[in-house]
Amino acid sequence: MTVSYSLSTSRAGVLTFPRLLFRWRGSIYKLVYVELFIYLMFYFALSFTYRFALNAYQRTLFEEVCGFFSDIFLDVIPLSFLMGFYVALVAARWWNMYSAIPYIDGISQIFATYIRGNDDVTRMQRRSLVRWITLTSTIVFTSVSPPVLKRFPTCLHLVKAGLMTESERKTYEHMPTPHVKWWLPISWCCNLVGRLKADGKVDGEMADLLLKEIQAHRQACGAMMDYDWISIPLVYTQVVTIATYTFFLAKLFSSQFLESSTEVDLYFPIILVFEFLFYFGWLKVAEVIINPYGDDDDDFEINYILDRTYQIGLLIVDDCYDMVPELEKDKYWVTPDFCLPNCKSTTADNQGKAWLGSTVPGGLLLSAKHFILGHTWN
Amino acid sequence: MTVSYSLSTSRAGVLTFPRLLFRWRGSIYKLVYVELFIYLMFYFALSFTYRFALNAYQRTLFEEVCGFFSDIFLDVIPLSFLMGFYVALVAARWWNMYSAIPYIDGISQIFATYIRGNDDVTRMQRRSLVRWITLTSTIVFTSVSPPVLKRFPTCLHLVKAGLMTESERKTYEHMPTPHVKWWLPISWCCNLVGRLKADGKVDGEMADLLLKEIQAHRQACGAMMDYDWISIPLVYTQVVTIATYTFFLAKLFSSQFLESSTEVDLYFPIILVFEFLFYFGWLKVAEVIINPYGDDDDDFEINYILDRTYQIGLLIVDDCYDMVPELEKDKYWVTPDFCLPNCKSTTADNQGKAWLGSTVPGGLLLSAKHFILGHTWN
Amino acid sequence: MTVSYSLSTSRAGVLTFPRLLFRWRGSIYKLVYVELFIYLMFYFALSFTYRFALNAYQRTLFEEVCGFFSDIFLDVIPLSFLMGFYVALVAARWWNMYSAIPYIDGISQIFATYIRGNDDVTRMQRRSLVRWITLTSTIVFTSVSPPVLKRFPTCLHLVKAGLMTESERKTYEHMPTPHVKWWLPISWCCNLVGRLKADGKVDGEMADLLLKEIQAHRQACGAMMDYDWISIPLVYTQVVTIATYTFFLAKLFSSQFLESSTEVDLYFPIILVFEFLFYFGWLKVAEVIINPYGDDDDDFEINYILDRTYQIGLLIVDDCYDMVPELEKDKYWVTPDFCLPNCKSTTADNQGKAWLGSTVPGGLLLSAKHFILGHTWN
Amino acid sequence: MTVSYSLSTSRAGVLTFPRLLFRWRGSIYKLVYVELFIYLMFYFALSFTYRFALNAYQRTLFEEVCGFFSDIFLDVIPLSFLMGFYVALVAARWWNMYSAIPYIDGISQIFATYIRGNDDVTRMQRRSLVRWITLTSTIVFTSVSPPVLKRFPTCLHLVKAGLMTESERKTYEHMPTPHVKWWLPISWCCNLVGRLKADGKVDGEMADLLLKEIQAHRQACGAMMDYDWISIPLVYTQVVTIATYTFFLAKLFSSQFLESSTEVDLYFPIILVFEFLFYFGWLKVAEVIINPYGDDDDDFEINYILDRTYQIGLLIVDDCYDMVPELEKDKYWVTPDFCLPNCKSTTADNQGKAWLGSTVPGGLLLSAKHFILGHTWN
Amino acid sequence: MTVSYSLSTSRAGVLTFPRLLFRWRGSIYKLVYVELFIYLMFYFALSFTYRFALNAYQRTLFEEVCGFFSDIFLDVIPLSFLMGFYVALVAARWWNMYSAIPYIDGISQIFATYIRGNDDVTRMQRRSLVRWITLTSTIVFTSVSPPVLKRFPTCLHLVKAGLMTESERKTYEHMPTPHVKWWLPISWCCNLVGRLKADGKVDGEMADLLLKEIQAHRQACGAMMDYDWISIPLVYTQVVTIATYTFFLAKLFSSQFLESSTEVDLYFPIILVFEFLFYFGWLKVAEVIINPYGDDDDDFEINYILDRTYQIGLLIVDDCYDMVPELEKDKYWVTPDFCLPNCKSTTADNQGKAWLGSTVPGGLLLSAKHFILGHTWN
Repeated sequence: MTVSYSLSTSRAGVLTFPRLLFRWRGSIYKLVYVELFIYLMFYFALSFTYRFALNAYQRTLFEEVCGFFSDIFLDVIPLSFLMGFYVALVAARWWNMYSAIPYIDGISQIFATYIRGNDDVTRMQRRSLVRWITLTSTIVFTSVSPPVLKRFPTCLHLVKAGLMTESERKTYEHMPTPHVKWWLPISWCCNLVGRLKADGKVDGEMADLLLKEIQAHRQACGAMMDYDWISIPLVYTQVVTIATYTFFLAKLFSSQFLESSTEVDLYFPIILVFEFLFYFGWLKVAEVIINPYGDDDDDFEINYILDRTYQIGLLIVDDCYDMVPELEKDKYWVTPDFCLPNCKSTTADNQGKAWLGSTVPGGLLLSAKHFILGHTWN
Repeated sequence: MTVSYSLSTSRAGVLTFPRLLFRWRGSIYKLVYVELFIYLMFYFALSFTYRFALNAYQRTLFEEVCGFFSDIFLDVIPLSFLMGFYVALVAARWWNMYSAIPYIDGISQIFATYIRGNDDVTRMQRRSLVRWITLTSTIVFTSVSPPVLKRFPTCLHLVKAGLMTESERKTYEHMPTPHVKWWLPISWCCNLVGRLKADGKVDGEMADLLLKEIQAHRQACGAMMDYDWISIPLVYTQVVTIATYTFFLAKLFSSQFLESSTEVDLYFPIILVFEFLFYFGWLKVAEVIINPYGDDDDDFEINYILDRTYQIGLLIVDDCYDMVPELEKDKYWVTPDFCLPNCKSTTADNQGKAWLGSTVPGGLLLSAKHFILGHTWN
Repeated sequence: MTVSYSLSTSRAGVLTFPRLLFRWRGSIYKLVYVELFIYLMFYFALSFTYRFALNAYQRTLFEEVCGFFSDIFLDVIPLSFLMGFYVALVAARWWNMYSAIPYIDGISQIFATYIRGNDDVTRMQRRSLVRWITLTSTIVFTSVSPPVLKRFPTCLHLVKAGLMTESERKTYEHMPTPHVKWWLPISWCCNLVGRLKADGKVDGEMADLLLKEIQAHRQACGAMMDYDWISIPLVYTQVVTIATYTFFLAKLFSSQFLESSTEVDLYFPIILVFEFLFYFGWLKVAEVIINPYGDDDDDFEINYILDRTYQIGLLIVDDCYDMVPELEKDKYWVTPDFCLPNCKSTTADNQGKAWLGSTVPGGLLLSAKHFILGHTWN
Repeated sequence: MTVSYSLSTSRAGVLTFPRLLFRWRGSIYKLVYVELFIYLMFYFALSFTYRFALNAYQRTLFEEVCGFFSDIFLDVIPLSFLMGFYVALVAARWWNMYSAIPYIDGISQIFATYIRGNDDVTRMQRRSLVRWITLTSTIVFTSVSPPVLKRFPTCLHLVKAGLMTESERKTYEHMPTPHVKWWLPISWCCNLVGRLKADGKVDGEMADLLLKEIQAHRQACGAMMDYDWISIPLVYTQVVTIATYTFFLAKLFSSQFLESSTEVDLYFPIILVFEFLFYFGWLKVAEVIINPYGDDDDDFEINYILDRTYQIGLLIVDDCYDMVPELEKDKYWVTPDFCLPNCKSTTADNQGKAWLGSTVPGGLLLSAKHFILGHTWN
Repeated sequence: MTVSYSLSTSRAGVLTFPRLLFRWRGSIYKLVYVELFIYLMFYFALSFTYRFALNAYQRTLFEEVCGFFSDIFLDVIPLSFLMGFYVALVAARWWNMYSAIPYIDGISQIFATYIRGNDDVTRMQRRSLVRWITLTSTIVFTSVSPPVLKRFPTCLHLVKAGLMTESERKTYEHMPTPHVKWWLPISWCCNLVGRLKADGKVDGEMADLLLKEIQAHRQACGAMMDYDWISIPLVYTQVVTIATYTFFLAKLFSSQFLESSTEVDLYFPIILVFEFLFYFGWLKVAEVIINPYGDDDDDFEINYILDRTYQIGLLIVDDCYDMVPELEKDKYWVTPDFCLPNCKSTTADNQGKAWLGSTVPGGLLLSAKHFILGHTWN
């Protein structure tokens, strides 16, 4: 459900960023419109009470309260500070959480290259390895991501979906440990590699690389569990939330138009709305990316990654097994000094301008040629 | 004792962050309520003295002192600056401290794969390796984490808990060095690997990988000792603490309601309380995570990690040894182009929409087809 | 199309940075002049309306609106804050995106060293490997970079350019998966290595290194796809954009010269222009580097990298295959203590001054010699 | 001489940080009390001159100067900005400088495992390798750390301390190069490994791992030399220093109590003292950690690390050589589902609560069970 | 030409940082004095014009202009913000650029260990490998660093300096590619390794390690080329430059002493000078380190690194080839529990105080001993 806008930003122009403002999925509007609506309800409730319901004495009182809350205006600065540092922390974590998601391409290519044979047993071995790797991913994904859990709520679903066999399910469920068991299929993979080596089907170096790739997968899964377990300290998130809510609570009063004011009465608090968009938008950045394994518009599409994992994994180890295109002499067989063809739009700027280091076009080389050898050095 | 709130933040909604404000464990309230109570005691003591105990001259004096401390208000900004940078430093360190905690899954899977045999001697070898690895972790954990030391205060406890044998304890305690000896069980592991290799039970590549995994474990343990030894420079922590306490000392006076003031008298310093929550909450973030191996609500549950380490370690090398499920032809044996089943909630958005790169859906490919080959390039 | 100015900044002088202001390609002027022009149009439209078209009552109203927007001035600070953190995030990502672009030098050198033979078959094997690696890069580049897609809009263009054979194209297009297929040529490479090993042409260690290099290439390509897919959360970009545009919308009014003002009337809003350059320039930094695989003056020249990749790759595996210059005794064969010759300009400062550690020139060593051995230690 | 306060911060409580204020070693007081004293001398000298020595006209002049310097107050903010970024840079570097210090545990464990034999020659080989590794560390340490140079000011001291033999010293000193020679013992190590391999005492894989570990040690030593050589650009440190000193020079005047002032006269500039502590404390953070290989209270205890290096290194390769405790059946030999014993204090919270992923306790799993298989997917 | 001040900062004292202010090489004064002089010229020109040349009306106008520019004062804050983030980006890059410079120690030690033999051919092989590695470095250095290009402006100089043979030069210059050819000597190295392996002079594992080290060197060289090619986006540097210059242009007017002012007239704008030092100093930090391969006082001494590279490289592979000191029984042969000797100054603090983890000195261990085994656990 990731919202990509790479293409729209491939060229910086007048409309590059403004155009992004007209998106709805993953947008600031979609994220804050409910809050903004509720907030304005409160604002106008107060406003109408003040304007139409209060008597003179109550108005004075109300105005004093509003004046009191204006003091807190000064705190604008610490709020944006706190937010800046908090969002920087969350954003760094967000990308690491993406990087932790394991892909299957590498490991299955090693399976395909090192476990050779096209008989049914070998194919089953390769396919089972891919299935177990996918199974590990799936168990971890269901543990950390609600959308994946919704899709595979029980082991029976995994069996039904073909990710687990019935006998594997039994072994899995009877493993005597209270801890989460996502490492079990990894263990099966390693054990199978161990057997293949004992049987002489793979040799020492191959087993080594196979095990390393499996370990890398296990490590990535472990990292996902870690990010899920160790949240950013709750107190930090609470401080940020309290600060933002307090700020806008104070604004509710201090932004009211008062009769004693000398300013123009706009009825609608336009600046307040922009401030709301600004600060709540910033807070929403943190909310959206603090757990990107979830359901938000901008969260990682883990269900899609899972689909791709199993299908591509099987393709690589089975359909593409030992597939090598017929070797041919390529187009540049006899012309070492060639250049790939260019279309007009790509040649204008850089055709023929190879990068030779910054010092070279600077004229230094030319003048340097005037140095007479033997004289340049002392 | 880690406070996780990943699930609550999996979807960004109106109540996502507000709901977090109603937690108690690890919360800002639990962390600052004592300080706040004491602070308010002082505040009201001053307030009542001023209102009821002082004569006119003393009041004037008191008001002058309060006015004097208002000057320091300007320093609001440097305080939040200092705090921002300090907490950023501590938070980066905090995650590195978590990452340093070694897990046993990887190393025991290598033990299980490479040290083959189901006889008692081989089983003892594998189990002893896991035990020694766990023992190393335990010794390091007791050295850096008070809760673990409370659980295993002496070597006798380790023996009693089955992590050390009696003879190992003697060797350990008689090792002639004043330095901490957590590396000794690591040394036993390496020596056992050395013997296995000398005996031809493991070959060169296997010993290599075994040693590398053991080294990785040793390195993680060393990193934990390092983080424990090298604290953030004391002077930095002191500067932050002094700044915060001075700031609120000044506020104690400057926030008093004075008779000469034209503002409304609220009796209760509501804004001050929010400021207190804000700045002390921020400071508490640092306090909680500066040594996350400790006792706080939000510290890492090292005792739990230890339990898991030994049990899972033994499971992998012994109960799961050479366990490979019966290989079967999987569900997609003959259908390479398949998709895992979807439940309704997960298909709405992304069913069938594979990610092909940002440039592809942008229309470029389509219009590009109109290029006539041979004309596009010059 | 990268704009390099390394040479101009190799020496910090009075004119180093000012001189950079007179560049056009990739410059702030080129990036914001259209916006600035439009913005000034609006400014003067308002200005002329106020000065010439409005009657007295309307002018008062207009002045009140302008006064109203002056309030937002205070928000200058949060804007630069937000911008600072946002640009820091984007800039870190920008360099990672460059580092993700795979170069072919390393992998083709390994091909050349380990796949030995100068017969046509072996040459075809090496050249095909290079071609497939290049092909993978090209497919990924077309998926993430509009200029490369413009150059190679279809597979037919790839065939025509000699990056793919006709039969490969068919295999590629008939691969039964909806997902992007850039991993397929990687799979061919691995399979060819697998066959070479099965044929005994490369041994275990060689295959290992070959596969690792191929995996590294695959990983780099995957990283490029990831950066393309996972944009910085849209809401962050929107918050920054809205903040900037709102700020200058308010400035449109608050910067108007009003008759009631006591300041000098400059007619041209010189300060506003500088502010515009400043904030829009900062925003443009983000716009330019948020997707550096694109078309901007400062984006990476991926088409050029592609040219280099294929040509250098083939040179290394084929033309330079087994090329070792005749070994000779070098100039310093009998003089171990030599120094490379220096020209005058490079000897002034550091000739003969080897770096021996900071403590050595400090005099400590000298005085230390006065220690009498046996006395220094207790 | 590192000041550790990990234990004091293991639990965040009311007194956690305040208690740190009562430390002396490495404290802000110890670091700034001299500066503060000198500064107050100047302050009071000016103060007394103004109050007692000046005539009316001179006083007016003095007051004008003081007023003039008050302007600079506004610059408070840039100062804390500059400081924040500068200290962040220095602090990141500080930890990297710690991480660069090489430990010997890993490398000596590899020596012990791979160079087998208990005869005198083999023991000498292992012990010499450890000694050369320690020697390299020592030479680098003397080059970068004044306390270590004080301990070992000449090669003769190294010989005397048993780190170098007399003949090694001669070889070392006659090596014909002006550059620092810390790499020489590393070269001896590699050459010995080369000989062991040539003699068939270690095989290919072993030599590989041995060389890699030696290279890692060399790299760490090189990094220490680099950090010593390449300081943070001098101009940055100067800007920070000038800014701080200028700020307090201005404060010297602007903080004077003037007769014309309407504020209360406190005689002692209490706020100024706090500001001094604050900004000079912050600056001292940078001063203390900018070269942590030095003499400060908070610098790394390199002499101690050196002691540990050599003793533990020899212990591992010699006394612990081939030491493997008698293998026994462990306590949980027949009970795979066990838990390590708990003391009361550690069980309260987390006993039996294994972490299963954030999604699991959230109720999703339960409700999910109501899905009827076959209905959940479409 | 690096300016090191590590020794001066090894101990934080009253004079540590102030003393640094009296350096000239690499100092802020050396970097900004020209700018400051020019700037003051302009300032006084304006000042004298105002004081002596203008009539009353013109003076009023001038004062209005000055007042106008005072508005921009508020922008002090954004400027320091922008500068802080910009310098942080540049400084991070600066250290990475240093780390990219390849050292030869590691690679030549591997050459010396693995390519065995003392005959002329083998020596030539080792020496040629070192020469080609150095040659690669040199070509890259000339491409990115003006001082190195000045030293070796043409290939002829390289031949003359003994880094290239005449026949190599021809091969190099006739290589049919427009791209920079620094990878060619790397290719020769790999090819030679390939031949050595084909000849059976090195075996598989050795070739592996040799190739990996060569690749690491190639990667470092590539990184240097990358840093040279991909500058920080020009627009960012321009924004910072424009902001600084505009700020001081406005200051030129707003800092003028006006007759209407009530402040004391100092004639010399002392505060302005400090501000100039502050902001221009900060900007100069960026200017100095944005391309540290250049000519500045604080740039890396690449010519020196080159000298060291070739000499040390040859020493290691040739003079130190197979050099192993006579093995002796070391001083602590029979005393495993020893401590290296200490001089008085180093024993005061830490003698005998081994670090055992933070929890141990805290008293926990002591009280823990009172636990009676069997009672502590439930």
